[in-house]
Amino acid sequence: MAAGTPLLKDELDIVIPTIRNLDFLEMWRPFFQPYHLIIVQDGDPSKIIKVPEGFDYELYNRNDINKILGPKASCISFKDSACRCFGYMVSKKKYIFTIDDDCFVAKDPSGKDINALEQHIKNLLSPSTPYFFNTLYDPYAEGADFVRGYPFSLREGVPTAVSHGLWLNIPDYDAPTQLVKPSERNTRYVNAVLTIPKGTLFPMCGMNLAFDRELIGPAMYFGLMGDGQPIGRYDDMWAGWCTKVICDHLGLGIKTGLPYIWHSKASNPFVNLKKEYKGIFWQEEIIPFFQSATLPKDCTTVQKCYIELSKQVKEKLTNVDPYFTKLADAMVTWIEAWDELNPAKDSAKLPNGSAK
Amino acid sequence: MAAGTPLLKDELDIVIPTIRNLDFLEMWRPFFQPYHLIIVQDGDPSKIIKVPEGFDYELYNRNDINKILGPKASCISFKDSACRCFGYMVSKKKYIFTIDDDCFVAKDPSGKDINALEQHIKNLLSPSTPYFFNTLYDPYAEGADFVRGYPFSLREGVPTAVSHGLWLNIPDYDAPTQLVKPSERNTRYVNAVLTIPKGTLFPMCGMNLAFDRELIGPAMYFGLMGDGQPIGRYDDMWAGWCTKVICDHLGLGIKTGLPYIWHSKASNPFVNLKKEYKGIFWQEEIIPFFQSATLPKDCTTVQKCYIELSKQVKEKLTNVDPYFTKLADAMVTWIEAWDELNPAKDSAKLPNGSAK
Repeated sequence: MAAGTPLLKDELDIVIPTIRNLDFLEMWRPFFQPYHLIIVQDGDPSKIIKVPEGFDYELYNRNDINKILGPKASCISFKDSACRCFGYMVSKKKYIFTIDDDCFVAKDPSGKDINALEQHIKNLLSPSTPYFFNTLYDPYAEGADFVRGYPFSLREGVPTAVSHGLWLNIPDYDAPTQLVKPSERNTRYVNAVLTIPKGTLFPMCGMNLAFDRELIGPAMYFGLMGDGQPIGRYDDMWAGWCTKVICDHLGLGIKTGLPYIWHSKASNPFVNLKKEYKGIFWQEEIIPFFQSATLPKDCTTVQKCYIELSKQVKEKLTNVDPYFTKLADAMVTWIEAWDELNPAKDSAKLPNGSAK
Repeated sequence: MAAGTPLLKDELDIVIPTIRNLDFLEMWRPFFQPYHLIIVQDGDPSKIIKVPEGFDYELYNRNDINKILGPKASCISFKDSACRCFGYMVSKKKYIFTIDDDCFVAKDPSGKDINALEQHIKNLLSPSTPYFFNTLYDPYAEGADFVRGYPFSLREGVPTAVSHGLWLNIPDYDAPTQLVKPSERNTRYVNAVLTIPKGTLFPMCGMNLAFDRELIGPAMYFGLMGDGQPIGRYDDMWAGWCTKVICDHLGLGIKTGLPYIWHSKASNPFVNLKKEYKGIFWQEEIIPFFQSATLPKDCTTVQKCYIELSKQVKEKLTNVDPYFTKLADAMVTWIEAWDELNPAKDSAKLPNGSAK
């Protein structure tokens, strides 16, 4: 990429959920300033969030969300970073990059600042290979290719819907692991991007994540978390499970690996444990549910897949906890709200071309 | 590991197929000398293969193979490095490391010589995680762990049967890719080991490979290649497909990634094309066959799995080419020969404990 011509400048929004002033943007200025930001302010809407000068942004607080979505605002979480998915919904761009406000620019092993956004864009613009594993990792990376024994019929790959980036310094651990290993830091820079194979679930973290919202946007619902809900810190996990099942069904790819960001601050493990503890045992049943979930052939759009998944959630997870009935209903509300804010255009551009 | 105490010294054999003097061992001396070598001499048995002094080895040429196996020697390929699997069969150790004689010691990014064997042993002695993807790669590596959202019930992992190492310098490309990119070199050192997820096939390369022969040995048959056969350079691929299906069935893990070796010399792409070309179109049918292959529950040993797989090969791949009938028969012969040379002990130690 030539210096000074940021990739996808007019086709990508950066979504940031926050409760504080966005000083962290200073460090990202060289990389983010050309792009439009969507800031989703969580918590007290009367609080003023300061955004460093020179950034192009729109900001939504809870009052805005309520005004825009009306009764459907109930599907957007409050007092939890899950609220970020409102930003995905109001964006009018093809691509989303979302990042937490405690994430800073990391350095590669040579000491160079990593342009995380540029790497995400590269990941999204090159195909994925979910049907067969390439032992030299991303075959589309410079200096790499498919190895001996990789079927030629699969070398075109499939469109990439999601790029999942990683974290140096503070790893994304659950509360029990944080408690057991308070001082563990991730210092291992793994110079690879790889496709998560079809049929394999993964824990998707929302800290450093990019996706093609035209391909998969409606599946990126971060669920009901935080205020008034029995659970927190499973927003991105929920989105990841649903997204993976739908990507597998629609023939879309998900990549993980590069880019790294520098995750500065471990969240409080005691607070986290309180948010997570139901999830820790629920996931033992939720994950097998998603591992065996199948979608019927007539689910040819993300919306149709998501509505079908919501039915299966209600039917099969309500016995885990009544919360899942509420969540299944919120999934439907989310799709209704999405379609209201994103009429026609998105569905027309879906890979299968079938309008909803 | 304390210097001077090589891991698994008396429990691992190094298997090397060759047609030339083994000068390459000089570079490996610090790492290999404590171990026992099994050298499988391919081609003219009257040729004398020189082994550098100080190595403990046994050497088998074609005459030896014929003498030991009698008519069953027909299952061991001639004039193809597939002959190496004879070494797996005559070994009396629990672990095998196999390496090609054009592979040298690679250096890590800090410039330090990589002890490939030590890394393979670490890979084999720590569990695998085939049921869910860990985004920070090997959760058992130092400084790493399972990330948030990884089910706790899966964190013990499963026994590791195979460790697949990679190659710096000359990548393991097929003939068409070699022809198109004659000067491509692999310079990307990816500091990771990861489990190939359940249900995902991969192209297993025999150049730098270790495995637990008590867990998976009988599946490591390198097929009928080379002299008198319509195909070459698919020996390791064949073993990889069969091994992966059987590992998935028996709940065993396969890892890929570290360690790297330095692959010194690209083989002749024109010669390779001649060996490979049938494989290049056959694999388009073979891979879907293995992707959908399932083994019945009563296949509780590797041998039973392998015999069952041989039946399915005969039934479903013979229409691709009559060669597969011959190969299916050779698979059966291989198991008979394996059991002759490895009575009782192996099957008694299988995870399911059921003797054949």
